[in-house]
Amino acid sequence: MACPFCDKRVQDGFLSSENFVAIYNIAPVLPGHSLIIPKKHVESLFDFTDAEVAEFMVLGRKVAFLLTKALNTDAFDWAIQEKEAAGQSVPHVHMHVVPRKVGDLPNPGDWYQELEKSEVHIDSANRKKLNPEEMNSIVTMLRKKAAELNL
Amino acid sequence: MACPFCDKRVQDGFLSSENFVAIYNIAPVLPGHSLIIPKKHVESLFDFTDAEVAEFMVLGRKVAFLLTKALNTDAFDWAIQEKEAAGQSVPHVHMHVVPRKVGDLPNPGDWYQELEKSEVHIDSANRKKLNPEEMNSIVTMLRKKAAELNL
Repeated sequence: MACPFCDKRVQDGFLSSENFVAIYNIAPVLPGHSLIIPKKHVESLFDFTDAEVAEFMVLGRKVAFLLTKALNTDAFDWAIQEKEAAGQSVPHVHMHVVPRKVGDLPNPGDWYQELEKSEVHIDSANRKKLNPEEMNSIVTMLRKKAAELNL
Repeated sequence: MACPFCDKRVQDGFLSSENFVAIYNIAPVLPGHSLIIPKKHVESLFDFTDAEVAEFMVLGRKVAFLLTKALNTDAFDWAIQEKEAAGQSVPHVHMHVVPRKVGDLPNPGDWYQELEKSEVHIDSANRKKLNPEEMNSIVTMLRKKAAELNL
C-alpha cells in the first residue's frame, strides 16, 4: 500500500518548515485536529537527528499556537504513537495536535479512543471524512491565521 | 497547594538536561511510564523559547529510547495535555512517555483513560502508588541503563 502521508497532495498543508509540514486531518476527531509529519518517509522518531527532532517540535508548538488561536481556546493535546503496539497505524511518523475546549467530550481523555477508531478506520466509511471543499476552506482559514500571527 | 513537580525530591530523576528532568511516575499506568518536566515551574508549552522546546523534546526522545531499551520493546506513546480542558491536572508542563507492548492493554488507546484516572487521582489511594523502595529500584535500574547507552 502506498504511504498516504507521502502523497504530495496530502502534504499540501497550512504551515511548514524545511523538513516538516502540518496538515489538517481528513477525519478530525475534534475541530482543529491536525498532524505534523516529516516530508520524507520516516518510520520512527529514532530515525531523526537531534536537529530534526528540534525542528519537528518547534513547528509542532507553532501549530498548537495557531490552532488554539484559530479555535479560540488555550488547551490542546499533543501525541505521538510509535509503532503498532502504541496504536500507530500509518508507519510514517505523525504527531497529533488537537485543540480542546471544556466539555467538548464527556471526559477529556475520550479523544484518544476516538483517535484510535480514526487510526484504525483511516480509509473506512465509518468516520466522516471532509470533502475537498470543506478541507480547502479550513486549510485556507488556517493559512490566513498563520500569516496574521506571523508564524 | 504546593506544586508536586517543583519538589526537589520528586525531581530526583533518571535522566536530565540543563533545564529538564525525566522522572518515573509514582503511579504508572504501565511499566516504564515516565514524565519529562522543566526543573522550573512553567505552566504552558507557550512559555518556553524555541531553544527550550528543542531541549525538552531532544531529552524526551532520549527518554523514549532509554525506556524502550529498558523494557525491551520498540513502541511508545508520547503525550502532552495542555490545560484542564485537555485533561491536565498538575499545572506544571509534563510530557508522558509510556513504553508499549502488544497486548499490554485490551486496546492500544486504553492507556489514555488510565492516564486520565491517574491524573485525576494523582494523590488518591485509588491507584497503586510505588513505595520508596520500588521507586528507588526502578530509578537505579534506569540510571544504569542510561549510562550503558551513553545517554
